[in-house]
Amino acid sequence: MGAAFLPGAAPGRCSVLGTSSCTQVLSTTQGSKQLGQKYLSSGSRQLQARMGSPVHRVSLGDTWSRQVHPNIESERHIQSFNVESLINILDGGAQNTALRRKVESIIHSDPEFSLKYNYFMTQNERYVAAVQRKFHLQTIAKRLGWSENSLEFYYAYRALSGELALTLHHVFLKSLRSLGSEEQIAKWTPLCNEFQIIASYAQTELGHGTNLRGLETEATYDAATQEFVVHSPTLTATKWWPGDMGRSATHTLVQAQLICSGARQGMHAFIVPIRSLQDHTPLPGVTVGDIGPKMDFDHADHGFLQLDHVRIPRENMLSRFAQVLPDGTYVKLGTLQTNYFSLVVVRVDLLLGEIIPLLQKACVIAIRYSVIRRQSSIRPSDPEAKILDYQTQQQKLFPQLATAYAFHFLASSLLEFLHSSYDAILNKDFSHLPELHALSAGIKAMTSDLCLQGTELCRQACGGHGYSKLSGLPSLVSRVTASCTYEGDNTVLYLQTARFLVKNYLQAQAQATPGSTLQKSLPQSIAYLTTTDLARCPAQKAADFLHPKLYTTAWAHVATRLIKDSVHHLETVMQSGADWDEAWNQTTVIHLQAAKAHCFYISVKSFTETLEKLENHPAVQQVLKRLCDLYALHGILTNAGDFLHDGFLSGAQVDAVRTAYLDLLRLIRKDAILLTDAFDFTDQCLNSALGCYDGNVYERLFHWAQKSPTNTQRNPAYEKYLRPLLQSWRSKL
Amino acid sequence: MGAAFLPGAAPGRCSVLGTSSCTQVLSTTQGSKQLGQKYLSSGSRQLQARMGSPVHRVSLGDTWSRQVHPNIESERHIQSFNVESLINILDGGAQNTALRRKVESIIHSDPEFSLKYNYFMTQNERYVAAVQRKFHLQTIAKRLGWSENSLEFYYAYRALSGELALTLHHVFLKSLRSLGSEEQIAKWTPLCNEFQIIASYAQTELGHGTNLRGLETEATYDAATQEFVVHSPTLTATKWWPGDMGRSATHTLVQAQLICSGARQGMHAFIVPIRSLQDHTPLPGVTVGDIGPKMDFDHADHGFLQLDHVRIPRENMLSRFAQVLPDGTYVKLGTLQTNYFSLVVVRVDLLLGEIIPLLQKACVIAIRYSVIRRQSSIRPSDPEAKILDYQTQQQKLFPQLATAYAFHFLASSLLEFLHSSYDAILNKDFSHLPELHALSAGIKAMTSDLCLQGTELCRQACGGHGYSKLSGLPSLVSRVTASCTYEGDNTVLYLQTARFLVKNYLQAQAQATPGSTLQKSLPQSIAYLTTTDLARCPAQKAADFLHPKLYTTAWAHVATRLIKDSVHHLETVMQSGADWDEAWNQTTVIHLQAAKAHCFYISVKSFTETLEKLENHPAVQQVLKRLCDLYALHGILTNAGDFLHDGFLSGAQVDAVRTAYLDLLRLIRKDAILLTDAFDFTDQCLNSALGCYDGNVYERLFHWAQKSPTNTQRNPAYEKYLRPLLQSWRSKL
Repeated sequence: MGAAFLPGAAPGRCSVLGTSSCTQVLSTTQGSKQLGQKYLSSGSRQLQARMGSPVHRVSLGDTWSRQVHPNIESERHIQSFNVESLINILDGGAQNTALRRKVESIIHSDPEFSLKYNYFMTQNERYVAAVQRKFHLQTIAKRLGWSENSLEFYYAYRALSGELALTLHHVFLKSLRSLGSEEQIAKWTPLCNEFQIIASYAQTELGHGTNLRGLETEATYDAATQEFVVHSPTLTATKWWPGDMGRSATHTLVQAQLICSGARQGMHAFIVPIRSLQDHTPLPGVTVGDIGPKMDFDHADHGFLQLDHVRIPRENMLSRFAQVLPDGTYVKLGTLQTNYFSLVVVRVDLLLGEIIPLLQKACVIAIRYSVIRRQSSIRPSDPEAKILDYQTQQQKLFPQLATAYAFHFLASSLLEFLHSSYDAILNKDFSHLPELHALSAGIKAMTSDLCLQGTELCRQACGGHGYSKLSGLPSLVSRVTASCTYEGDNTVLYLQTARFLVKNYLQAQAQATPGSTLQKSLPQSIAYLTTTDLARCPAQKAADFLHPKLYTTAWAHVATRLIKDSVHHLETVMQSGADWDEAWNQTTVIHLQAAKAHCFYISVKSFTETLEKLENHPAVQQVLKRLCDLYALHGILTNAGDFLHDGFLSGAQVDAVRTAYLDLLRLIRKDAILLTDAFDFTDQCLNSALGCYDGNVYERLFHWAQKSPTNTQRNPAYEKYLRPLLQSWRSKL
Repeated sequence: MGAAFLPGAAPGRCSVLGTSSCTQVLSTTQGSKQLGQKYLSSGSRQLQARMGSPVHRVSLGDTWSRQVHPNIESERHIQSFNVESLINILDGGAQNTALRRKVESIIHSDPEFSLKYNYFMTQNERYVAAVQRKFHLQTIAKRLGWSENSLEFYYAYRALSGELALTLHHVFLKSLRSLGSEEQIAKWTPLCNEFQIIASYAQTELGHGTNLRGLETEATYDAATQEFVVHSPTLTATKWWPGDMGRSATHTLVQAQLICSGARQGMHAFIVPIRSLQDHTPLPGVTVGDIGPKMDFDHADHGFLQLDHVRIPRENMLSRFAQVLPDGTYVKLGTLQTNYFSLVVVRVDLLLGEIIPLLQKACVIAIRYSVIRRQSSIRPSDPEAKILDYQTQQQKLFPQLATAYAFHFLASSLLEFLHSSYDAILNKDFSHLPELHALSAGIKAMTSDLCLQGTELCRQACGGHGYSKLSGLPSLVSRVTASCTYEGDNTVLYLQTARFLVKNYLQAQAQATPGSTLQKSLPQSIAYLTTTDLARCPAQKAADFLHPKLYTTAWAHVATRLIKDSVHHLETVMQSGADWDEAWNQTTVIHLQAAKAHCFYISVKSFTETLEKLENHPAVQQVLKRLCDLYALHGILTNAGDFLHDGFLSGAQVDAVRTAYLDLLRLIRKDAILLTDAFDFTDQCLNSALGCYDGNVYERLFHWAQKSPTNTQRNPAYEKYLRPLLQSWRSKL
């Protein structure tokens, strides 16, 4: 529950939007389509020869980088698959890999983009550095001819781990394009493009987030002057969390309740100038500032804004869908379908652009560290073992690695669905929107939840060093943790998915007359609800659980049962006299469980479908299949109760799942380093003393610590407290 | 796996030790005994009258504190139990409550102890402030006559949330007392007590933590000069993580491999001067500094230390248990039983002194906020509802509240067991040590794991505001997260418990001849392993699951089954040819699961036993019983697979558990605020804009943000980047 449901309100998403595929989809969908899954059967080998190395390395160039640590070097000797092929698959084609690496080389060879002092900076310093980077990037992009929504920008954002300011500027532009009239777009776009103004987007308030209708800010039309009076009537109406607003923006798009001719017309968007273009001071009636220290996102100046009867011209209300005439008459001009769609775009965009890479990076860091770190020995007489050789370490890390892959393929297939839905929308077919909305809501919730669990597990798996910011892990955790809240609190999102499931299930049930084919009435992603279902899992032994069809069916069974169960409980509570709303609130815990199972089923299915498309890469297919198996079976073990509940699995079968699962850990062990190399993150982008490609963990940790302000700045506590104390006894002598 | 297994190495634990019950137990056990559970049947009412308020309030004294927000005021109207009685129970008696409040009043009325700018400080600033507080506390304590190990110090530590420097000084003293000879104790104790030296404790190394035997630092005896040459032979031998060593300590106790007369004698402790007493510069051969930025614990200067053939006199090796004679002869003087015991003391001490209060505070903050925050409505026509009225919010927060109580009682009973074991040790009876060790290891692991999950859930339940440091929640999370690593990585600790379980189970099995009573051969906490067990749970309906005996038995059943299962798997792997060590590593995932179930059973049992002792407080007993029920049933639902696996519970019974669980959420709702008030944290100690007693959330959030350096310091990005950009277009006109 909380602050940040919609565009502009939330930390991470704002940052992503600036340079990624969101605006593309709404305008041309060109850029993000390039990121789709294209499995190239040729070309990659050619490219590899050109690059001269199986894995692209932009090393930190410090003393130790020259020599790769033998303990990690040995992990790369036996290559059971071609890493470069897998990299190309993840990139959506060898051309993309080449382009990404080209952009990374440009960014990383430029010291102005360096992230290496980030962990030592104050909030103010990180903000200034992010502004500097943003301006430098704009300069470079201009010189190299990168257009605003290009893949180059997307890859630059990735290389810089999103440490850029002024990304809300682009959210403003996007909203302008989708909500503004042609005249408004023509007027404000060039002002933004040339940075004659710095724009932000202000929606969430101190007292309101998720429930849009509850927002309190008012815009009252004054026909006498043809102005809107924009006002924060209460303390809780203070805008709170908008990015770039704390210290940067000159203008902001305010979401406010429109009041005209005495009637409340609901939420509308208004362009409000907030700071002087002359000297940047707040304009009259405007109280604006920064919301202060956060867990992370120090580079973004999230702000607050109070408006005291601030007057803006009538033309500043964005009026593609509604207009206020000079005399105060309210005119509706259409429905807001595309705004609804843009919500979905933002979420899907976040998955690949922000959330999933955080888990991938955590896996890279923790797994690389785990082949350098040695501790105890498996047998007393043995030398100390690599900690990755312990079963408990494998069971912490490999399910996360599998999840990182599973989510990449899941998000890619969601992106494909989004593109086809967009094509349909262009032909005025909005029929896929409810399904797309439900899918994107649930998948965002599941992804951010499990990425948070996963990054934190990776962090803990690095012991004490994982607690040091220099490991890079704490910032991954504190950043992914935000994604559980922004763009919709996960609980709220899961329940939106649940409503879709319940509604469709009830409809299908109502239509179910003997002889009719139910499937046709259900959207594709939930068609499984009405397919014939087995009462018992047919698996006889551990190896049987390594069949994708078997475990996909098992997940379909459990999801179906839980959805039916949630509907049953809802109906039972209603039969006992409660109305729909009350019954819903009394059963939300059950709906939540059903929505989670549904989303997990979708993710297993998408992974298995990806495997099917990899026929031309048998070695890659084999190694990914192990991850897919692990992902599905780990899911079964973690939710064993759901599978045992109706006897679909027996206790003995769950034991067989565990046996298969433990065997998989052992098999994945030998490919673990290559599987993390395949994410192809540069050392600069990882920014981790533990996770560099060369494995020189301890050298880097020691060297980086020397640069900390706790070592480079003098210690005032000594003169002030320690010295007087230590020397007080001398005077007594 | 990682850096911080033993005393002195870890962030949190160091801080705790300084002023808490650890040293007490090893010396007099007086202080912590006062904290034990004494349920006073009288006296509390008298005291309450004296205090004039049912709950002790030390409010922040800001403008809004004068008026309690009506939305939280109304929650306190119906008092189904006496809050003050519950406070006394948690404090271990009304006298303790009174003393605690007295200390809190002293601390909070003194501006030098203020924590209010903590969230705005850099690492350096927090360290300086913590040194300042430490010295101020020492001054006050001297004036008021608080002795070093008194309850007053313990309560002062609580009031200050542990934000004190130089706590390792006391760990040094403790180690000196347990490992030093009488002469050594006599020499160094006064130097410490008068702060003529500032001491630290250095164990963990850059490359080694958990595995003590792997430590690389060497102390080689040179008979010619009667000195030890203390040396870090490799980079990985650098001491890493010792508290107070980064910028403060003049001396440190170094754990090093003793080498004398050419033979390696294992780990011993050496007092090494590291900084000049004249000017605080590092002594010759010493490289010392701070390890840099961490997730939290900025107040403690965790350091690194490299020793290059540093010579110290022979007398600086602590020699209660072993000695090196002038000629280099090594003499053993006894066994190190009490050192083993001190490990346990540290862990138990951490539970009540550091870890559990973090979860309690998170519950207070999140639950108080949840009756102020309103969002959406349950029915469209209703006004916006308090978010605590949503079932999903209750299901996030109430299990955490129940856990916070469960762990308090669990830790208290463990403390009692520790005291009785200590009494036995004084009579040379060491027989309880293995059980005590296994219990403390597993309970520390479970407590820190679940407290981390719980605080993070509470944080997320506060939405966007929970991401602001001003909520107080981020620092609770980042602090409790450290406890999963320090004083033993949780996985390693659980496996120590598992070894104890397996070993004892195998022994009992070996002794099992027909007619013998097995129970007698098992330590008390695992006696349940051999009691008669039901194959099926007899519960018929939801209400049956509200019987403590029923769910305790259910947990005993599951723990027993999992332990047997783990032994069975171990034996199976060994029968297939593996030796013990290999078989162990191939089954650790299974042992982990068994150890977790065992610990959870212990916690359920301790909660139910606490309830039985509350006969004189029926109202308190009733409200706590609901929490106990919730705790146990939430545990069953979270681990439903373990209960369904062998058919002990049927699917229908699990559904009944869920029904009972959902009913409990509703019942606990009305007492929720009082149950958080009962932890009796002062507003200063919570240091949360969301969690104050008066509920004036938004006023405080807005006001606190104004004080952030992001608002009080000028914005250099404007002059440097924003202004040139915004004004560049003017020049073109």
